[in-house]
Amino acid sequence: MRSTTAWRTANSGELEPALIERRSLRPDDLGVRVDHCGVCHTDLHSVRDRTDGATVVPGHEFTGAVTAVGSGVTRFRVGDRVAVGNIVDSCGTCAMCRKGQENFCHDFPTLTYGGTDRIDGTPTLGGFAREYVVRDRFAYVLPPALDPAGAAPLLCAGITVWEPLRALEVGPGRRVAVVGLGGLGHLAVKLAVALGAEVAVVSRSASKRDDVRRLGARELIVSTDEAQLAAARERFDVVIDTVAVAHDLSPYLRLVALDGTLTQVGYLGPATVNTTDLLIGRKSLSSAGSGGRRATAELLDFCGEHGITADVEVLPSAKVNEALDRLERGDVRYRFVLDMSDL
Amino acid sequence: MRSTTAWRTANSGELEPALIERRSLRPDDLGVRVDHCGVCHTDLHSVRDRTDGATVVPGHEFTGAVTAVGSGVTRFRVGDRVAVGNIVDSCGTCAMCRKGQENFCHDFPTLTYGGTDRIDGTPTLGGFAREYVVRDRFAYVLPPALDPAGAAPLLCAGITVWEPLRALEVGPGRRVAVVGLGGLGHLAVKLAVALGAEVAVVSRSASKRDDVRRLGARELIVSTDEAQLAAARERFDVVIDTVAVAHDLSPYLRLVALDGTLTQVGYLGPATVNTTDLLIGRKSLSSAGSGGRRATAELLDFCGEHGITADVEVLPSAKVNEALDRLERGDVRYRFVLDMSDL
Repeated sequence: MRSTTAWRTANSGELEPALIERRSLRPDDLGVRVDHCGVCHTDLHSVRDRTDGATVVPGHEFTGAVTAVGSGVTRFRVGDRVAVGNIVDSCGTCAMCRKGQENFCHDFPTLTYGGTDRIDGTPTLGGFAREYVVRDRFAYVLPPALDPAGAAPLLCAGITVWEPLRALEVGPGRRVAVVGLGGLGHLAVKLAVALGAEVAVVSRSASKRDDVRRLGARELIVSTDEAQLAAARERFDVVIDTVAVAHDLSPYLRLVALDGTLTQVGYLGPATVNTTDLLIGRKSLSSAGSGGRRATAELLDFCGEHGITADVEVLPSAKVNEALDRLERGDVRYRFVLDMSDL
Repeated sequence: MRSTTAWRTANSGELEPALIERRSLRPDDLGVRVDHCGVCHTDLHSVRDRTDGATVVPGHEFTGAVTAVGSGVTRFRVGDRVAVGNIVDSCGTCAMCRKGQENFCHDFPTLTYGGTDRIDGTPTLGGFAREYVVRDRFAYVLPPALDPAGAAPLLCAGITVWEPLRALEVGPGRRVAVVGLGGLGHLAVKLAVALGAEVAVVSRSASKRDDVRRLGARELIVSTDEAQLAAARERFDVVIDTVAVAHDLSPYLRLVALDGTLTQVGYLGPATVNTTDLLIGRKSLSSAGSGGRRATAELLDFCGEHGITADVEVLPSAKVNEALDRLERGDVRYRFVLDMSDL
């Protein structure tokens, strides 16, 4: 076994430093020094909404360097820059895995934390730690051009918006509206712009107008302004809805053009939709989250070519509880990343 | 004004014969002798669920012959066989009308009954009548090859399933499951088979196996058999859900393949969906009903070429109340059509 330091849930309701164990390397494992780990809404829920009393080490979008390789590893060497997302294993044999969609594995993919290792049955502990041990298939080469702090959120926030953008064939001539300008939303804007689409942002706040322009979007539609929403009716082939809480879909479905799609990526609870909101204009509702190995590697290549990283505020990992508090209040532009070098 | 006989709602809760008025022909109007009119679930609701006490003449899928033409009509002559569906006018100028999607008219299309005429403001009265007066743009040439009784349901049930089949590019190599084998479902099967798709039927009843084969589908999946449903997991690119009442979508979403779509055409109330049922497999939920002029004409041409009509039980119009009772009990294979020659 290997020991490392980590930020772990405690009875205080906060994260506290702890010494945790990682497994000894299997033949196809990498030891990864975690340098930067993004802070996702899922992490906030895992800390705040603990109902079963289980301890959790959050963190599932991180970058770092390989420190050790198992005997059978050929794709990586010690010192390689790597990235890890929210899936660290899958069955590898079901129809979804064979299609490169390990995120939809019929046997359910092994999550980076809060999951159960498929070999030894131990609970997985996340990337708010100085070291992680990961199966080599689920580590990705971090392109040299990318800042490792800004790249960390690509592994969860980025891939979550990348998969639907690709599946919906976003590119030149396609009109995309991104609802909500947060961790997911700002990356959706950057990626859709780089793919060549015409992009608008829908936000409650007119104060984000400068950011909207800087991110490359053409316009801001203020969602509290009925006239602006009405003027945007049926103007978008794709609406990426990143709102993180339950909400009425009707106002956003009205923005969708004939044969277009609204994709929910921020809120994953049950959604009620007026069937006629879909019927009129032959619209579709879909959802997305996470991504498969193929798409993740493709995203990192694309970001390397286009110099895309998240807009991040880097904090020493000792400030992790402050980061969660501020994320809870929405006080972040647009993603916190923890610098793990203080562990 | 022109007088004609019709079946109209009465305080008895049944339809009773009545003398009604039709408008005098405008320059772009046709007088149509209604020979055959299909009986749709919407008709049943309009008779049973009258809350405002308004009288209604149901009927919005009918075929017949032109008996008179307005002074400006050039596309039709007296004696032509025609068909009329559930829309008889639209604004003609909005973006949807300009795209040939009058069914999505921003000013709401004028319904064949229960609507309001755009010129004189009178309520529209439907096709359970001996004559109808319709704007020429919303009458369609009935292909000579088609039996007029069996063709009548194409104008509502047929077009409702045709639009999503076309929008979802159903054809050779595409796998389609039709949930529910009724008026909508049996036409969805015939059309999808004629388009070249591999078609399965999902039904509660194993007794429909012979019909399933006769309609050209490859298999019947009995939805009450968990093992059969499980074996059909993720096997269909398109699932056409024709169930007419509120129901759990999860079992049918599980049949949808990666990047596939479930389209609801039978039930148009609010639908609650587990977002994760869409997320896992990147599936879409959509809905459909009715169709535009372009698609309706295309459907009739397609049916003329392929000899497709509905499987109907023709009743004299005097048996309209019996037809509604039996429809309510599900005792119909697969559409009632009223023969109006007794009026």
